[in-house]
Amino acid sequence: MAVAGGNKTKVAVIGASGYVGEELARLLLRHPRVELVAVTSRQFAGKTVAEVFPRFSHLEKTSELRFSEPDPEQLGQRAEIIFLALPHGRAAEFAKPLLQGGARAIDLSADFRIKSAKTYREFYGHDHPAPELLGKAVYGLPEIYRKKIADARLVACPGCYPTSILLPLLPLVREKVANLARILVTSLSGVSGAGRKIEADYLFAECNESMRPYGVPKHRHLSEIEEQLSVFAREKITIQFTPHLVPLNRGIITTIYVDLNEMSDAPSADERPRRTGDRRSLIDADSIHSIYEKAYRDEPFVRLLGDKLFPDTKNVTGTNFIDIAWRFDPRTRRLILMSAIDNLMKGASGQAVQCFNVMRGYRETEGLL
Amino acid sequence: MAVAGGNKTKVAVIGASGYVGEELARLLLRHPRVELVAVTSRQFAGKTVAEVFPRFSHLEKTSELRFSEPDPEQLGQRAEIIFLALPHGRAAEFAKPLLQGGARAIDLSADFRIKSAKTYREFYGHDHPAPELLGKAVYGLPEIYRKKIADARLVACPGCYPTSILLPLLPLVREKVANLARILVTSLSGVSGAGRKIEADYLFAECNESMRPYGVPKHRHLSEIEEQLSVFAREKITIQFTPHLVPLNRGIITTIYVDLNEMSDAPSADERPRRTGDRRSLIDADSIHSIYEKAYRDEPFVRLLGDKLFPDTKNVTGTNFIDIAWRFDPRTRRLILMSAIDNLMKGASGQAVQCFNVMRGYRETEGLL
Amino acid sequence: MAVAGGNKTKVAVIGASGYVGEELARLLLRHPRVELVAVTSRQFAGKTVAEVFPRFSHLEKTSELRFSEPDPEQLGQRAEIIFLALPHGRAAEFAKPLLQGGARAIDLSADFRIKSAKTYREFYGHDHPAPELLGKAVYGLPEIYRKKIADARLVACPGCYPTSILLPLLPLVREKVANLARILVTSLSGVSGAGRKIEADYLFAECNESMRPYGVPKHRHLSEIEEQLSVFAREKITIQFTPHLVPLNRGIITTIYVDLNEMSDAPSADERPRRTGDRRSLIDADSIHSIYEKAYRDEPFVRLLGDKLFPDTKNVTGTNFIDIAWRFDPRTRRLILMSAIDNLMKGASGQAVQCFNVMRGYRETEGLL
Amino acid sequence: MAVAGGNKTKVAVIGASGYVGEELARLLLRHPRVELVAVTSRQFAGKTVAEVFPRFSHLEKTSELRFSEPDPEQLGQRAEIIFLALPHGRAAEFAKPLLQGGARAIDLSADFRIKSAKTYREFYGHDHPAPELLGKAVYGLPEIYRKKIADARLVACPGCYPTSILLPLLPLVREKVANLARILVTSLSGVSGAGRKIEADYLFAECNESMRPYGVPKHRHLSEIEEQLSVFAREKITIQFTPHLVPLNRGIITTIYVDLNEMSDAPSADERPRRTGDRRSLIDADSIHSIYEKAYRDEPFVRLLGDKLFPDTKNVTGTNFIDIAWRFDPRTRRLILMSAIDNLMKGASGQAVQCFNVMRGYRETEGLL
Repeated sequence: MAVAGGNKTKVAVIGASGYVGEELARLLLRHPRVELVAVTSRQFAGKTVAEVFPRFSHLEKTSELRFSEPDPEQLGQRAEIIFLALPHGRAAEFAKPLLQGGARAIDLSADFRIKSAKTYREFYGHDHPAPELLGKAVYGLPEIYRKKIADARLVACPGCYPTSILLPLLPLVREKVANLARILVTSLSGVSGAGRKIEADYLFAECNESMRPYGVPKHRHLSEIEEQLSVFAREKITIQFTPHLVPLNRGIITTIYVDLNEMSDAPSADERPRRTGDRRSLIDADSIHSIYEKAYRDEPFVRLLGDKLFPDTKNVTGTNFIDIAWRFDPRTRRLILMSAIDNLMKGASGQAVQCFNVMRGYRETEGLL
Repeated sequence: MAVAGGNKTKVAVIGASGYVGEELARLLLRHPRVELVAVTSRQFAGKTVAEVFPRFSHLEKTSELRFSEPDPEQLGQRAEIIFLALPHGRAAEFAKPLLQGGARAIDLSADFRIKSAKTYREFYGHDHPAPELLGKAVYGLPEIYRKKIADARLVACPGCYPTSILLPLLPLVREKVANLARILVTSLSGVSGAGRKIEADYLFAECNESMRPYGVPKHRHLSEIEEQLSVFAREKITIQFTPHLVPLNRGIITTIYVDLNEMSDAPSADERPRRTGDRRSLIDADSIHSIYEKAYRDEPFVRLLGDKLFPDTKNVTGTNFIDIAWRFDPRTRRLILMSAIDNLMKGASGQAVQCFNVMRGYRETEGLL
Repeated sequence: MAVAGGNKTKVAVIGASGYVGEELARLLLRHPRVELVAVTSRQFAGKTVAEVFPRFSHLEKTSELRFSEPDPEQLGQRAEIIFLALPHGRAAEFAKPLLQGGARAIDLSADFRIKSAKTYREFYGHDHPAPELLGKAVYGLPEIYRKKIADARLVACPGCYPTSILLPLLPLVREKVANLARILVTSLSGVSGAGRKIEADYLFAECNESMRPYGVPKHRHLSEIEEQLSVFAREKITIQFTPHLVPLNRGIITTIYVDLNEMSDAPSADERPRRTGDRRSLIDADSIHSIYEKAYRDEPFVRLLGDKLFPDTKNVTGTNFIDIAWRFDPRTRRLILMSAIDNLMKGASGQAVQCFNVMRGYRETEGLL
Repeated sequence: MAVAGGNKTKVAVIGASGYVGEELARLLLRHPRVELVAVTSRQFAGKTVAEVFPRFSHLEKTSELRFSEPDPEQLGQRAEIIFLALPHGRAAEFAKPLLQGGARAIDLSADFRIKSAKTYREFYGHDHPAPELLGKAVYGLPEIYRKKIADARLVACPGCYPTSILLPLLPLVREKVANLARILVTSLSGVSGAGRKIEADYLFAECNESMRPYGVPKHRHLSEIEEQLSVFAREKITIQFTPHLVPLNRGIITTIYVDLNEMSDAPSADERPRRTGDRRSLIDADSIHSIYEKAYRDEPFVRLLGDKLFPDTKNVTGTNFIDIAWRFDPRTRRLILMSAIDNLMKGASGQAVQCFNVMRGYRETEGLL
């Protein structure tokens, strides 16, 4: 990589001890345009990155770079862009001094994903610690908010479920073909989605050969999903969402049920909808395909599987891709959307690096392929 | 077990080489009121049960009992009740001579689950091999059809998904509280649900760390689910159903979205529905509880988890139980039903033995606890 | 089971909150000759067994039986036999008052497995809390110490690894065919072997898709393995032992390398050893088979797989069996022994119930098949 | 990557449909110095790489590059270096015309790993199909045979087990500190090690929650391990080797027991061996460390974990590293070596690409980090 040191961006990761922080550190250490100047963790302060993460102990600098106690002021001076991989509530506390000091921040917690402090309180159970910053944050979904991200001082990376749900849904919302009052979503998540939480529920012997729904009916991620949908639709949207915990390390599968608008005509004899020339029934297989092509044709991290293939987490594990497939069901006249992501990559750290590339004007795939 | 040999029922299993057949053989060999006189398998003919299934090689008789080629006539003379664990299409061929010879049969294939030969053809892609028997078969869901099963000559054991879907749904249909036009179901299944199919898709390295939807939008099990719902509702019901394959050996988790009828009143301030005295809004948490209590209070294999716990496959693996939980979502006014079964037990072989106990007048839990 | 209540033995489980205690509670609740009068757990005190262990919430009594704080004196009066499922160190404290009060105890910790207080100190790092009881304890391997167990007041159930190692080895030691100076053992264990320890190392995402050796070179279980071998051999035996953690819930696979004594003659042309009439080379395939047949022919929980089959944990999971296989390697003149057990059954709770049956004169398989 | 097309090496993969071939295709498609001109597979002929391997369908060229029928002559003209990922026996047939045509070949099968046609016949059960080529093949372990590989026309990539065994062992053999008559090895392998074999034994439900030894006592990989050791030691070496199948996708853990030579002195009081100045007892912890440092200090793909850490497959999965740790056991005076690799990377395809880099004079890590 013939990139001079001077061309690199100095970055730091605050809270690099969880799965998201670990993946972020790995990506940044391998990124040709990044110089990782600091990683912080109270738990690991004093240890080298190589000691804490033997998986990438071969990477340059990991034997010298030591975890430090988090000190936002000092970090703001040393790094141009700071990644916050902290629990919600904590991230906002750190963001304030960092932004005041002139740094830009990419937050992977839930703290800045929602514009409404009231919604935050409703879903997270406490007052927002820095409501004055809510208006400044840009929702870090590059496929949707690329331009705003480029100029943002504070980027709020979407949650893993919201990423897997919004990217398939938003093109349909934009084209007004979905009945927004009737969206239902089922998601399946691997166990790393719970973070490196040391709780009995996430022990191997409790998760292996187990699967279970949880967070029904009001999972916290609903707040950002519904807010984003509502912004797009310019009306208040409420959806149904059921997450499930399944025994794999990484990956999310999301299945979305969408009632289509304006399907006035009966499907044709072969039970596949067709373009009829009637404006009111324009949603057929070709139209759906066109909507997604238009939305994502040039997106480097969206792979459209169409109506023949199915998404499978094993095809996205370790990558920053989202795979999106769909089926029209002529029996119920619903559209079924299906997506797969790696919850730690496109669902968290990979997307954060993608945002970083956008913010710095780098090629969007830099360090991610 | 002080049961004289003369009190035992002679049974045979045709097609005992798959996972369903193996589990059935195990249950029958341990059943105190059963004498297993024959097991058939073309693949294993000549081998002893102990050789083929080392897991239960310690059970009595497994060293003498040898797999034989299937010969319906002879089996019909030796056994009083015959279990058919064959692929669909094949089972019907065997059922005909067995029934003519006077034996009773419990079929675990899909061949007799549907009353309509036309529906069978639509979903299974070929004409039904014995349409004249369709009217004689009883759908083997003891919680629903106990009396008919007791007298049946031919019992068609439900599919694994249908069992996990119908048991939670039917009480609501019976009480007319569900909007039958808007039922959506998502299911997750362990890999043994695919049977012992030697195909690349089911290799360990293809399924482990993988999850994927499949069979969208028209999985074959829809045929029996919809037929059963339609019978109960006395109108044609069409539902949405999406199965997913997840990396565990056994277990099904089903999540069902139900729009409630007649919820005319707004939910109360505390966001939980309440009994109002108004007939039109009788569905509240207590009512739902009552409906399930009434339906399943005395059922030996239904455990009602209510609206606090979540089903988890690990609690039902290796058992014949179905665990059922529910949540009312005041935001969407939907009821979310969740169930867990072991696909090889309550979803197949355990339910077949439960039917057998009903047919013979034995205690329904005999050999199953 | 037509066993009158009066014929049942009253038992209690102290420390029933781990995996071993849970499995023990399950076995005892289903045991036809047992009345479980108390279960204790500081963590769960006040909760019912059904609440804590939903997996067997259908079993009678689980909705009434509540966890209590452990109180050895009171328990000693209410129960005839007490199972101790506590961490090592703690078990000895409870055993003392129980035995003094006249109860019999079955301890599943490591506290009474070793006769030598010095060895205990060497391997467990602290003085033995009740050295005066060491001489009274019987090592709870029924296949070896059945008679002593029958009369014992204190039974020390072997560790999971020791069970999987000693049962294959002891017949060879007894027959003096193994070179005792050169025994090497490799074991693989599922994660429940670590107990319900809430530590980062045992989180799903740390264990799944991971395997690793640990406890090298001096795992604690060496103390009891070597002591038992030394007792049998009447000389001090030191062995090599390497355990590995692998991603499954239950099961141990043990592979043992044994240099054979007195193989003076070359193996025959077909590379399989044969009986030659020469006393000094009596170890051939037939002899090995005879040794195991003689040792275990009538044992209800030992399945001899011989030199054709391989043990597989899936054949023993959920059972109290040990499967034992062997191979003679003519190239190295070593014998390779291989065994499989379920670490929570034959490796802990199942074996404890087997000991209980022996102590009470019940059929040894009672409640275990 | 500022590498001109003209600087790229044209390569082809014959037999790219298995796990090894898939991983190879992925690595070569991402390799900055490679132009993959052909992939062959009878099964997939006509399909694009993107269709067959959706996991890397985003990589350039995968939508145009189609699998073809294997045609060695034509391939030999189009590619400079050909990778053979075929079953043993088949690879040799293809190698012959390729080499005659002037191409260089990297074979991932077992066909050219052994110098002795007699040994091949003994272990593989049939005559070697091209014995005249055996002398020309170089064993593709770059850490050992780098110079020979650089000039080789035919490189035989080691098996996965041999790689995990030879790299830890050879430095000790070279330094003559190991008793070569007494080496024992236990290995654990994930299921992809069996290849994409569509057999019942490798179905998910047969492997998950299962572990088992196999191939005892004479696994085929012994042939190459022993031949390599014998070459180094200049005497015939026979070792003990027991592989086990465990339920993960990728990874090998190898544990090696080594009796040390010349340990005439008693270990010192602190139970750790020390350098004494006496030539006969030079093996102490420091010496072992020195031996490995000397052997592998500058190796880009060897990570020495020393005597404090343990190898864990999760740290090497998806990488070309081998992690090596050791422990001296003062109780038995044995050295225990432990290693971890990804069987598809350092155990197969990654190592093949490493050899390729050596053959072409590229940086050895090119395309592998």
